[in-house]
Amino acid sequence: MQKLSTQPYKGTRDFLPEEMSVRTQIFEKLHRTVETYGFRRYDGPILESAAIYEAKSGEEIANQQLYRLVDKGGRELALRPEMTPSVARIIAGNAEQIVFPARWYCNVNCHRYERPQRGRVREHWQVNVDIFGSEEVEAEVEIFDLVGDLMAALGATPDMWIFRVNDRVLVEGALRNFVGVPQDKLVGVGMAIDRWEKVDQETRHQTLTELGLGAEQIGKLEELVQMDLTAYGKVAGDEALSRSKLAKIVREGLSQAPLKFDPLVMRAFTYYTSTVFEVFDASPENRRSIFGGGRYDDLASLFTTKKIPGVGFAVGDVTTWNFMEHHGLLPKPDLGPDIYVFGTSPDYRAAVRSVSRALRREGLRVEPALDDPNVRNGLKHANRLGAKYVVMIADEEFKVNSAVVKDMVGSTQQTLAFDAVPGFLKQALQAK
Amino acid sequence: MQKLSTQPYKGTRDFLPEEMSVRTQIFEKLHRTVETYGFRRYDGPILESAAIYEAKSGEEIANQQLYRLVDKGGRELALRPEMTPSVARIIAGNAEQIVFPARWYCNVNCHRYERPQRGRVREHWQVNVDIFGSEEVEAEVEIFDLVGDLMAALGATPDMWIFRVNDRVLVEGALRNFVGVPQDKLVGVGMAIDRWEKVDQETRHQTLTELGLGAEQIGKLEELVQMDLTAYGKVAGDEALSRSKLAKIVREGLSQAPLKFDPLVMRAFTYYTSTVFEVFDASPENRRSIFGGGRYDDLASLFTTKKIPGVGFAVGDVTTWNFMEHHGLLPKPDLGPDIYVFGTSPDYRAAVRSVSRALRREGLRVEPALDDPNVRNGLKHANRLGAKYVVMIADEEFKVNSAVVKDMVGSTQQTLAFDAVPGFLKQALQAK
Repeated sequence: MQKLSTQPYKGTRDFLPEEMSVRTQIFEKLHRTVETYGFRRYDGPILESAAIYEAKSGEEIANQQLYRLVDKGGRELALRPEMTPSVARIIAGNAEQIVFPARWYCNVNCHRYERPQRGRVREHWQVNVDIFGSEEVEAEVEIFDLVGDLMAALGATPDMWIFRVNDRVLVEGALRNFVGVPQDKLVGVGMAIDRWEKVDQETRHQTLTELGLGAEQIGKLEELVQMDLTAYGKVAGDEALSRSKLAKIVREGLSQAPLKFDPLVMRAFTYYTSTVFEVFDASPENRRSIFGGGRYDDLASLFTTKKIPGVGFAVGDVTTWNFMEHHGLLPKPDLGPDIYVFGTSPDYRAAVRSVSRALRREGLRVEPALDDPNVRNGLKHANRLGAKYVVMIADEEFKVNSAVVKDMVGSTQQTLAFDAVPGFLKQALQAK
Repeated sequence: MQKLSTQPYKGTRDFLPEEMSVRTQIFEKLHRTVETYGFRRYDGPILESAAIYEAKSGEEIANQQLYRLVDKGGRELALRPEMTPSVARIIAGNAEQIVFPARWYCNVNCHRYERPQRGRVREHWQVNVDIFGSEEVEAEVEIFDLVGDLMAALGATPDMWIFRVNDRVLVEGALRNFVGVPQDKLVGVGMAIDRWEKVDQETRHQTLTELGLGAEQIGKLEELVQMDLTAYGKVAGDEALSRSKLAKIVREGLSQAPLKFDPLVMRAFTYYTSTVFEVFDASPENRRSIFGGGRYDDLASLFTTKKIPGVGFAVGDVTTWNFMEHHGLLPKPDLGPDIYVFGTSPDYRAAVRSVSRALRREGLRVEPALDDPNVRNGLKHANRLGAKYVVMIADEEFKVNSAVVKDMVGSTQQTLAFDAVPGFLKQALQAK
């Protein structure tokens, strides 16, 4: 029979134990840090009604990137391409019992049909973090501080990344008052700013001209995107400036994070309404967004008349992994077993089992041999496994109820009575 | 605009933080225990080629229960209904670099289109645990011991569950030699045994008659399914008995787990080839299988000519949750925050931030208020959140750089200088 391919479906990934251990460690660092900010983990189904994406996620996602299916009951479903519509649904459906402001996070996989390339896959994992139900500036301060702490938790030093921040309230004010963009062209011009660094000047001019901007307006726009926050705030106007949480945070130094005002940061247009931010790799060879987020005025309008504002972000595994790899920050796989136990004869299996069980009662990660290798093969196998210690029961030792305990790193060894092995190894592994 | 439903898709579940915390704690107990046995975690994509289920998973799954979709490139895909075909693919594709015997586990969600009912959902989470590449009896011993330790880790005492075990090798021998079932009817009769407790005697007799069994044979079968292992082994014949790992384990008492031989345990026919087992709820009101597993001779034949035997099982979240709930074993939600910090005036926000940051540096889970509640409302909010401690900065305290630290459980409180708060609370929370 023809054998089937062992490749995973295009754009998806198998995580063998080595990679899974790295992924797990990265996410554990993120989770632990997020929890020090009082966030609570939640989860939701991968399958959602397709309607919730058609309504809100933007045309690109709904038309081109959505994995759709119809169940046997005729329901039109989709694999979630992002978590926001799901969490909006869950929050809206349980708003009566939820204590607001609610700090929620999750770790979920999302699917998008994209051409696989560096930093883009069809199934990726992400940590979503949101504060729901607060319009206070302190919500932004918490989110900014958290982002800074997350990057530190990953081992990143401030020179490795740029915390680019902007505020759509200021953008709108400046586009309207300084550039003279009419209301119905604000989104279009915003999108052109979003793509500023991705296209050449000629393409950009063409886009802006098509949006109805004259040469003078384009010149003003080019001036605008280079302003610092003080200048930008002035041209945005007093009304916008007084509403801007970002301007207040920067002016008063409310956040510990290394915020850098950047007029080019826009983020997705369907959700965010004021604060937007992006964590950007500072390395010239890996200039790309690692993750981002922002504030939305009204998250759950699809599901409820209750207005639920919020601020949040999502950290994806692929871009984070690339960033960490690029800067030499990836943790080493921590696979186990700590200890490999073997005996050189079937007659010693009861002893192997007994020692293994005693070691496990100490919480250690123990792999006993399932067969009876000779000393040479047993040690070779332990080495291939990456075990830190070997407990070896050979003829001489067995006679006196003892085992050789070998440190595979330090290459020292000693003979210990069976009873003494667990205590010795517990202490030795704690000391490592 | 008409609002969309906030219900999750039928048969799937939202996990609000309360439920998610319980699920997380349950799975962490399982993971920690599995890791003491040297298992390494892996992961794979949810989308797989539909072909891998059509070939192996059995008709019921492939035809009726599979969520299928076609991607924009015309690939026929499915949401995995179980993990075994995926892990077979991954193991086969990486066999050259994997150290065998390989101990692997994962925690994945699987989808099946079923009528939702107690214990059955359309998306469930499960921990899969397998030892690949060993035909040694010690592999079964490890798996059996692990199952026993997993149940203990969940808090189950031996009276709460039954570890039902059987061996298809013995079943085949007994059906052939004792009942006189011809080769081509072995699976059919096996399936009838599998459904023994689910149908009445009349239906069973009809099925067996249709399979060609006479009254005498049916009588022998009825006798067989009540035999203990000694009697069963005798009628199965010497050849089967000598090949049976289970018989050896029970006879020689190799496993610590409370194995109970049960001729009615069969499990899925497409994978398992000898040892099969089922963890069963012992409670008369919840008589059902919690989870099960077994040994397969040749896991990855779809993908490779290399023969990879193995033994393993999968623990699903729904049946485990039901079991634990029924026996009062569910862990309490552990949600955080440990500490709620608030000030009664916007002027104290800098102090709130500063104290919160210091507490986080101790690794504590801290939620600062985003606004400035009065004392009464701040305490009320902390209570609703379930915070263990409150740090409150009101007028009198702020004047002297101090805060009131209130134990929300013990209802004691004291005033501490800002600097003294983190150390005090770290110690207090560790002592809880």
